[in-house]
Formats: sequence, structure tokens, C-alpha cells
Amino acid sequence: MTVIEGRRTAKKEYAVAVAGATGAVGDTMLRLLEERNFPVRSLKLLASERSEGKVLSFKGEETKVERLTAGSFHGTEIALFSAGATRSKEFAPMAVEAGAVVIDNSSAFRMEPDVPLVVPEINPDTVAGYKARGIIANPNCTTIVMVMPLKPLHDYGQVTRVVASSYQAVSGAGKKGIEELRRQTSAWVRGEPIEVKAFPHQIAFNLFPHIDAFQPNGYTTEELKLIFETRKILGDGSIRVSPTTVRVPVFTAHSVSMNVETKRKISVVKARELLSKMPGLQVIDDPDQGLYPMPILAAGKDDCFVGRLREDLSNDHALNLWVVGDQLRKGAALNAIQIAELLVARHL
Amino acid sequence: MTVIEGRRTAKKEYAVAVAGATGAVGDTMLRLLEERNFPVRSLKLLASERSEGKVLSFKGEETKVERLTAGSFHGTEIALFSAGATRSKEFAPMAVEAGAVVIDNSSAFRMEPDVPLVVPEINPDTVAGYKARGIIANPNCTTIVMVMPLKPLHDYGQVTRVVASSYQAVSGAGKKGIEELRRQTSAWVRGEPIEVKAFPHQIAFNLFPHIDAFQPNGYTTEELKLIFETRKILGDGSIRVSPTTVRVPVFTAHSVSMNVETKRKISVVKARELLSKMPGLQVIDDPDQGLYPMPILAAGKDDCFVGRLREDLSNDHALNLWVVGDQLRKGAALNAIQIAELLVARHL
Repeated sequence: MTVIEGRRTAKKEYAVAVAGATGAVGDTMLRLLEERNFPVRSLKLLASERSEGKVLSFKGEETKVERLTAGSFHGTEIALFSAGATRSKEFAPMAVEAGAVVIDNSSAFRMEPDVPLVVPEINPDTVAGYKARGIIANPNCTTIVMVMPLKPLHDYGQVTRVVASSYQAVSGAGKKGIEELRRQTSAWVRGEPIEVKAFPHQIAFNLFPHIDAFQPNGYTTEELKLIFETRKILGDGSIRVSPTTVRVPVFTAHSVSMNVETKRKISVVKARELLSKMPGLQVIDDPDQGLYPMPILAAGKDDCFVGRLREDLSNDHALNLWVVGDQLRKGAALNAIQIAELLVARHL
Repeated sequence: MTVIEGRRTAKKEYAVAVAGATGAVGDTMLRLLEERNFPVRSLKLLASERSEGKVLSFKGEETKVERLTAGSFHGTEIALFSAGATRSKEFAPMAVEAGAVVIDNSSAFRMEPDVPLVVPEINPDTVAGYKARGIIANPNCTTIVMVMPLKPLHDYGQVTRVVASSYQAVSGAGKKGIEELRRQTSAWVRGEPIEVKAFPHQIAFNLFPHIDAFQPNGYTTEELKLIFETRKILGDGSIRVSPTTVRVPVFTAHSVSMNVETKRKISVVKARELLSKMPGLQVIDDPDQGLYPMPILAAGKDDCFVGRLREDLSNDHALNLWVVGDQLRKGAALNAIQIAELLVARHL
């Protein structure tokens, strides 16, 4: 889009800041700003005190990481935040005050009624709503992967209920999650004791149904995000979601096993047709050839992948499906950059 | 049970044969026959040609593995089979002909109407039905783990539908599955290429929704077992199951995320009470303390473990729960030995 605009007029370029530049999502944001040739006039890399002075490379130029402070956003036009909800709550309003549009990857503002929660392939028009607060929220990583196949099914057959069980990669917990699986695996191979630091339990050769904090109703915050964010993104408060989220010993890409009930019956043939047309989603569903989505296939890819399409033998208005997506890309950094591209394309 | 019997009368001992003695389940059967002090008078270890002559130890005595042939079962009273469906189909009838009762861990006879499919804590009385064919079938490993919490919920509230997504360990595919994860992990740590042999794809740091063969309706044989075996074990053909089975990079213990719909509403408090009373099942459900079932906790244990009990926010007649069990023990070898113990205790 930006390239096409550029052919017609002198291409406008933007002063961009990335808050949380040294994290797993921040890393991916920088790579995607390069890859997608986002019109960056200037780039400010921001992080906590711990990472101050670190040098990162962007388009061949070395850039020093600055400490995130109240004054960081002077002159910034687009601020990409991925530094956790606490820092977003503190610094995003300051960035807005300084004149920037904030695209926030944390959970801080997602459910605020005057903050749009955007997946560009699904609800691009809601992005204009950022004008109320200056903030656009990027959804939870697992929610994004889930709603990609739900959107075309909902448009055609009205999704009434989803039972979802997730298989979430360690990089969903950031670089410390990646490091933990790597360290525990190496220790295991060397016959050394396995140390637990980043997660509540050993993750190498193990898994646990515990992501984010437990709430009084027994669900985790992660699980509740799947319920409420799905409704907001699809713009339908009547959709019911029954979620269980599980951490697995995989480095990158979240998988979700979904049972999707619809008001109007959708055959597998129809579902395949609908899903195939969804931008950002690829159908991989030839199990006889051993073809279905898997984390090692999805990692590093922009698209999400859906397969194992089956009519539910227990409910004739339901489908089973399996969706996998790189949660650092489409689940986080890519979706945020796509939101920024949408702002640019629409001259917002 | 056998110990108590032994106190009262001269304890009868049995001529036992294990077909498939060198496999992952066979190994566990030998360990359990020892651990549980099963009344073994003589033990014959049988396997394919490849393992003939191998020496295994049982109660400190070394025993040579013999090749499984038509004549193997002369004098055998109890034959434990875990050598795959093809060998069971060929040799189980020969063992019966020779006078043995066969307890078969393969899928060969499970759905035959005149072969009981037994989980001793659930349907012990059906075991007497072995007299028709001389064969008792041991259910699929994931099915056993699933039905353990379903039984008390079904008795109280009538289970109508279950949506299940599994997280299945590599040892479910036998020793070659264990070896594959070990080898691929070591190669990864050493920076060497990862070879794929036992599974359709790399399993280290990956997972895939593919266990057993795909059927024309898009489900795998493993998934169909969860539907049909659950009905047979619980003795209720009206129970509907919607399954998705997934292989994960865990060595031992299968986990299942289950959404359980019941005719009569069951509160979490009631469910906890019902599940706590189920023999062979332990409730671990104190998430605020980081306590819930996990593979590394369940591996090597006889009991299955259930937790993450939650009322389904999308259906007021449904519960979400998470169950984990060592599929080599309760899911296979232990259940088979328990069936043998039942035969002994009931003088069948």
C-alpha cells in the first residue's frame, strides 16, 4: 500500500518509536519494519534501564537503545508499544500527549470502549476510532490466531460458541521463555539439573495449563482475553467462548484446537472455501499427505494456517479445526505494523 | 487384593505370558507385576524375532525372551498382549485355544460386542464376559485417561457431550517414539541436523494433530477410539464425543483438555466432591499455589490426576477440566494388570 502511494506522490515518512525494542516482540517489529519497507523517517528505540545503551541494527544502521522516559516521545508520530501493560499504562498517554498515535501490544487498553482493538483483515474500519484516545490496541497473541478462521465462518454462519484449547509457545512469554526452554533442554542433554526460573514449572518435556494469572472463577487472565477480545474484534457480544490455555515446549507459534458452533450449518467443503478466501490465512488440510498446520511450519511466516477441518460428529452445527500462527508475527508485531500501515494508507 | 486372598488361603499362582515383553508397555507390565506382587508361578516373555534371545530381569531372575509363535502359549493361564493389533489378531485366538485368558492391549478386539472393554474402577463386572471369547480388551491409552473423570460425572449428572483435545506423549508410540524425541533433542543441542524416523514430522520443539491413520471423515483412528471406546466403557451409546488428538514433545503421560456437557448441572464444588471419591483419580486443583496436573507429575504414577475444574462460561450445563495420566501405566500396563487382578480376585 505504502509503495503504491509512493508512486503517486512524494511518499510521506514517519518518526517512529518502538517502546520495548529489545524484547522478543520488539525484535520482530524492527525486522518487520525493514522487511515491509515501512516509511520510517526516524526511529527511536526505547527500553527499560536494563537495556539502555544496547545497540540494535535497523536497515544496516546501528542505533542505541534509549531509556523509556516521560520525555521519550517528543517529535514521535507513531509509537509502537510492547513493553508490558504497566509501562503502557504509564507511558502511552505521555506519547499521545506528545502528539504520537500509540499502537499498544499490551493488554492495558484492549477492553476500553473508546480504544479500538484491531486485526486489519477483520475490522479495519474500527481503526479510525483511535482519535478518541490516540491509542489503538493490538489483541492478545492467541486471540489473533483464533479469530483469523473465525471471521469468515462468523460472516457466513454466525458463530455462537467456541470451545478452544491452546498449545502456546514459550516465546509468548518473551525472550526469557525462549532462554528457559533452551537452557533446560541443554541441561537435560548434559545430564545436569533443570533449573526453573521464567515459568512456574519445568517446561522442557512438560506442559501446563497455566498462562498469566488465575482469577477467582478459576480461569486465567489469558483465557478471559480469548472470551472478551474475540467478541470485541468480531463485533458481536453474543459469541460465547470456552477456553483452556496451555504452555507447551515449542519455541515459536501458538496452536489452537477449536470446536466452532454456528447458527447456520457449515459443511467442510463450504468452510474450506470460506477459509481459503480469508486474507492472511492459508488452508493446509491434506492429512493423507501428512499436511496440516504445525508450529515449525508457521514459525517465521506472516500468515496463519488452518487445517484438520472436520464436521463435528457430536453436533451437526459445529466444526472442528486446528489453527497455528507465529504469535510473534501475526500474533503481535506483524499485526501492530499492519495497523500502522492502515493508518498510513488511510492518511489517518 | 491378592495379598489379602493369600492371607486367608494358600495363594494360587499363575502361569503368565507377556507378548510384546520388550516394548514400552511390556517393560512397564513386568515392572508392575513385580511392584504389585502379582501371583506369578511362571513367566514367559515373548516378542518378535528381532528381540528373540534378549535377556530381561524379573524379580531378580534373568529370563530369555522367546519368539512369539503358534506354540508359545502351551500351559499359559494368563496372556498379556501388547504387541500390536496384527499380532493380537493372529496369536490371541491361539493363546485362548491353548487355555489362556487373554488381556489384550491392542485395538484388535476392543469394539467386538462379545469382548469386554474393561477399566476396573469403572466397569469391573463386565470382565466376566470374557468367557465368550476368552479375551478381555484393554482400552486405548487416551480413552482410559479421559474416562476416569467422566465416570463419576456421568453417574451423577449424565454426560451428554464431550469436546476433547489431547496432548499425547511420544512414548504412546512406544520405545521408538521415546528414542526419536531423545535423538532429535540431542541433535538440536549439538547443532546437528534433525532426522525424522518414527513420526511423520519433527517432534522436538514441535507438535502435530496426527496420531494413527486418517479416515475418510477426516478423523484419525485415534480420535474415533475416543468416541466409540468411551461409549462402550461407560455403557452408554448416547454419549457424544468430539475429539482432536495431538502429539506433543513430552516423554510420558497424556493430557486431555475436556469440555464436559451434562444433562444435570454439576457445580465445580459438586464436581470436586465427585471426582475426589473416584478410585484411581486424584484431584490436584489449587492453581493459586501453582498446583494442577502436569505430565512430569503424572509420569511413573498409578493414579490419574484431574484439575482446572471450571464452570463453562459459555454453557451452564458444562464443565471444563484438565486430566493427566501416565499412559504406559493406567493407560496401558497398569490397567491390564488390574484386569488380571480382577480375574484372580473373582476366581474367574
